[in-house]
Amino acid sequence: MKFAIIGLGKMGYNLALNARDKGFSVIAFNRSKEKVDIAKEDGMIPAYTIEEVISKFESDRKVIWLMLPSGDVTESMLETIIPLLNRNDIIIDGGNSNYKDSLRRYETLKKAGIDFCDVGTSGGTNGARYGACTMVGAEEEVFSYIEPLIKAISVENGYLHTGKPGSGHYAKMIHNGIEYGMMASIAEGFEILSKSEFNFDLEKLARVYNNGSVIRGWLMELMEDAFKKDANLSKIQGVMYSNGEGLWTVEEALRLNVPSFIIANSLFLRYRSLEEDTFSGKVVAALRNEFGGHAVKSKD
Amino acid sequence: MKFAIIGLGKMGYNLALNARDKGFSVIAFNRSKEKVDIAKEDGMIPAYTIEEVISKFESDRKVIWLMLPSGDVTESMLETIIPLLNRNDIIIDGGNSNYKDSLRRYETLKKAGIDFCDVGTSGGTNGARYGACTMVGAEEEVFSYIEPLIKAISVENGYLHTGKPGSGHYAKMIHNGIEYGMMASIAEGFEILSKSEFNFDLEKLARVYNNGSVIRGWLMELMEDAFKKDANLSKIQGVMYSNGEGLWTVEEALRLNVPSFIIANSLFLRYRSLEEDTFSGKVVAALRNEFGGHAVKSKD
Repeated sequence: MKFAIIGLGKMGYNLALNARDKGFSVIAFNRSKEKVDIAKEDGMIPAYTIEEVISKFESDRKVIWLMLPSGDVTESMLETIIPLLNRNDIIIDGGNSNYKDSLRRYETLKKAGIDFCDVGTSGGTNGARYGACTMVGAEEEVFSYIEPLIKAISVENGYLHTGKPGSGHYAKMIHNGIEYGMMASIAEGFEILSKSEFNFDLEKLARVYNNGSVIRGWLMELMEDAFKKDANLSKIQGVMYSNGEGLWTVEEALRLNVPSFIIANSLFLRYRSLEEDTFSGKVVAALRNEFGGHAVKSKD
Repeated sequence: MKFAIIGLGKMGYNLALNARDKGFSVIAFNRSKEKVDIAKEDGMIPAYTIEEVISKFESDRKVIWLMLPSGDVTESMLETIIPLLNRNDIIIDGGNSNYKDSLRRYETLKKAGIDFCDVGTSGGTNGARYGACTMVGAEEEVFSYIEPLIKAISVENGYLHTGKPGSGHYAKMIHNGIEYGMMASIAEGFEILSKSEFNFDLEKLARVYNNGSVIRGWLMELMEDAFKKDANLSKIQGVMYSNGEGLWTVEEALRLNVPSFIIANSLFLRYRSLEEDTFSGKVVAALRNEFGGHAVKSKD
């Protein structure tokens, strides 16, 4: 089976290598030429333009896997590629798109007779390379057609047809929301440990937490690795960026009226970490000063 | 090596079987006679009174492992047993005692020349039976003496001398605090999933989340098992009890000024789940009615 990967970033390129190893013919496209050259050396079919991607297909039904940043980049690639496709060709969005975009794209493409499916992909770059976790939102017939590919690049038991289009990205969004809360909980626990009187060896604690305990799992393994590299994380600043899925999970919780204290707070804590000082802090300091004459810390 | 287990509950009895299988001679005591009878049938040395526990030791140094509910039960057993011990005998508290109690007990026993160590034990009953996760707070010499036992009942890489006495229960307390937050995050994610338009099969989602994803781990495996038994958890009420460790983690966070939004909220959510109605709710309803004439829902 032949398919194209559009976007040879960390996830896309590792997925491409993974699929190549499983015997798939991979047409590889990337905006920057250099990555396509590397893909050629690695045994893939290089395509330096979108037109070239299309021309490399011989079969009736083209399968095009987008692995691009969500939002504008994915949207504009879709605008470029759709006019070049035929009825029944399949677009797979394997990026972290908002499920609402996926629902909209599915509906739009449906009118043109083009099949769309959304694949939430988890497991990091190593998973992409050697066995990912994939959640696929697709019509039954489309899922059946791409299942051999999905199965091949996924870890054992690590792929699921989650339901109709949109559901794959939805399941991935919630996965990431859960991940936000789990990470924040691990983080608070280790902060308390690091400030306690017991002088814990955090790497060793992460190791013991990870063998036989209730909280064992991949995040705790990563914690152990991180402490191995940097015993007290002294080389890292506690600034937490985010890519959208946590926010979307909270938006979804609000839409469905689901009280989500944990995931919402883990999102807010990320925002807080991006601010050196806060207006909220100024307000409380000002009010304490106003009513009680409590000291304020001046700027500079 | 011979040692005694005091308390043959779910955790204690499984630990006793585990140690027996590894070649230890286990003196088994429980308040209710029936469990001691069963222990006898299972090849342990039965003891129907605390005096009998003591008399079953031949060696110089007695090792007595308490596996009792924390608080009064553990305290009163210590009061009973301590007068019967000699210098250098070792008390292991393997229950979920507050680390402050463990620090106090260590200091008190130290004066009598009796060694005390605290073992935080995780992994549930199955872990206790076939390989636990153990965190041991003890003096170096005491740890060396009991290490063969600790190692034998623990899963590979699943035991750690966490530091001085008190540190074992501290590490276990934080483990449980982290567990509260992780579970609450998983819970919120699945509540959103269950209310979404996609009609997800939650068991299958838990299965795919558990194979290759970032949030894979034992809690997600348990989630899969739970949905397998009861697809939408319709047989279970959402009432969440707690045993103390979450509260103690939050108390510790307050003592050390560690902002712990996630763990504190997961504790508060447990308390909320125990209330059918809340005074807070009444207050807000009353105020909305007072200022805006908004409807209140009457009792009955």
